[in-house]
Amino acid sequence: MGCETPEKVLFNTLLQHVDQHTDNSVDYYIFASENVTSPSRKDIVLIRSKEMVLHEDHPLIVCKKKQSSLYLGLQALAKGQLDGFVTAGSTAGLVVLSKHLIPLLPTIERPALLATMPTKKKPIAVVDIGANVPAKSRALLQFAHLGAAYQISRGRLYPKIGLLNIGSEAVKGTLEMQNAYALLQTISEKNFIFSGNVEAKEVFNGDVDVLITEGFVGNIFLKTAEGIANFILDKLERSSSSSVLFLEELKKYLHYGKYPGAFLIGLEKPVIKCHGYSSAEAFITGVNAAIMDIKEKLCEKIKKNLTT
Amino acid sequence: MGCETPEKVLFNTLLQHVDQHTDNSVDYYIFASENVTSPSRKDIVLIRSKEMVLHEDHPLIVCKKKQSSLYLGLQALAKGQLDGFVTAGSTAGLVVLSKHLIPLLPTIERPALLATMPTKKKPIAVVDIGANVPAKSRALLQFAHLGAAYQISRGRLYPKIGLLNIGSEAVKGTLEMQNAYALLQTISEKNFIFSGNVEAKEVFNGDVDVLITEGFVGNIFLKTAEGIANFILDKLERSSSSSVLFLEELKKYLHYGKYPGAFLIGLEKPVIKCHGYSSAEAFITGVNAAIMDIKEKLCEKIKKNLTT
Repeated sequence: MGCETPEKVLFNTLLQHVDQHTDNSVDYYIFASENVTSPSRKDIVLIRSKEMVLHEDHPLIVCKKKQSSLYLGLQALAKGQLDGFVTAGSTAGLVVLSKHLIPLLPTIERPALLATMPTKKKPIAVVDIGANVPAKSRALLQFAHLGAAYQISRGRLYPKIGLLNIGSEAVKGTLEMQNAYALLQTISEKNFIFSGNVEAKEVFNGDVDVLITEGFVGNIFLKTAEGIANFILDKLERSSSSSVLFLEELKKYLHYGKYPGAFLIGLEKPVIKCHGYSSAEAFITGVNAAIMDIKEKLCEKIKKNLTT
Repeated sequence: MGCETPEKVLFNTLLQHVDQHTDNSVDYYIFASENVTSPSRKDIVLIRSKEMVLHEDHPLIVCKKKQSSLYLGLQALAKGQLDGFVTAGSTAGLVVLSKHLIPLLPTIERPALLATMPTKKKPIAVVDIGANVPAKSRALLQFAHLGAAYQISRGRLYPKIGLLNIGSEAVKGTLEMQNAYALLQTISEKNFIFSGNVEAKEVFNGDVDVLITEGFVGNIFLKTAEGIANFILDKLERSSSSSVLFLEELKKYLHYGKYPGAFLIGLEKPVIKCHGYSSAEAFITGVNAAIMDIKEKLCEKIKKNLTT
């Protein structure tokens, strides 16, 4: 498991987490920068990295930083020394290096970030929330296949796919959106249904299982939901008329501090991307999600269910 | 005042609204398609149109539909026969026709849609929420000038301008975003401050007065906020632990049924765009907003405060 930030807090929380963990079969490898103190538990292995991938690094620079925590962690994952990889590092760096070091699934050209979000019905899988900026219609089509394979692997057969757009008509949105709409409509799929464009305000009704979107827009979508949820929770907490129990219930749905991070889909191995501003608690949720993905053999299932 | 939909309901609500209106100086002109019954009050004038602007119409077609309600209404506004214009018709059609028929403010090349949204502090003005898809960096710069002039006209001197992006660093987002960032940073403005990139989750903290964004992204931003607000209100209403009073208060902030519509900024005359799915109630809120804008001479103030 690797991270760039917030390393020190993570160490302490991970130590506590390991204490609570009944299943002692899990080892934790932490790839972190040099200025971090050693953990005191022998089932947590600290691997110090001498370089750091920065947000502004060009892809060519990222690939040359072979001593960064991102590179070392993904390399260990590729070699089978790790079962999964969790990071709060640079998204752009992660996408470049994972594509460089981990085998991609057949027909997939680039990995995408998938996040699940609550709706009035079942949770929806949103692809892509920031790995592909901008994304062409061809990439949007791959997101549909990946999102469908993900939901099928989670037990949702014949998932409905929606395209996040500013109106329901086929002519709405950018040229790439219109092309993606046309491509998705002409394909006769065996294992998923294209439901057309979905407006952002309709998403939370839960009428589709997968929402596909270009990475920039997907990221704005996710972060807006997070922002307005926090805004409402803030208002609720200041109000004497809301019960503590109800607040806790709503927080479970909406509090993104406990958010398990995004799944980097399209790779043969499990990679989880946590927010750069993740709390140690959020990071642990990401680690637990990775453990579950590994145990469930999620990547193998996605590969099997991916039809293109 | 003009509308395409929902005409019949609007009539009845407008009639009631006029009854309640103490100020009898306001006349209402309704430009509507042929299949609408006459209103029964003499201060409501019905003008039947023989054509209809459709969402899928090409701009050239839109300009040729001189008997559409959009064309007739905007033409009457341009001639001074109306003081303001409210519509729930096609956004693309409205932008094309308003640019064609109403004088633009100096240095402005295209109008933009401005919506105000609640935050933890003062409401924020979001430009553009769907009139410009896609928008170049040059347009984003004009949105900043327009948004600043709007807030100054509303009494918010030296407004802070934020660029909606997926991270705070100057290199984040699409090429157009990066160019807009560079342009905004190099300009030394007399009457507004550029605060840099703002992530969607930070917007609701209310640290900036104007949020600028390309139209597609702005529309997703607005509709996501609307969607998640409705989702939370739905959960609250199902919960026995929330008080009715508190729900009403929250709805005032978040219920987009009462949303006053968006202000089409950059024109010499007041134009309000309501959602295509506006309830009659939402439409009346739009009409009231237009009346207030006219009385406050908002367009004249914006023109005066616009520095480029």
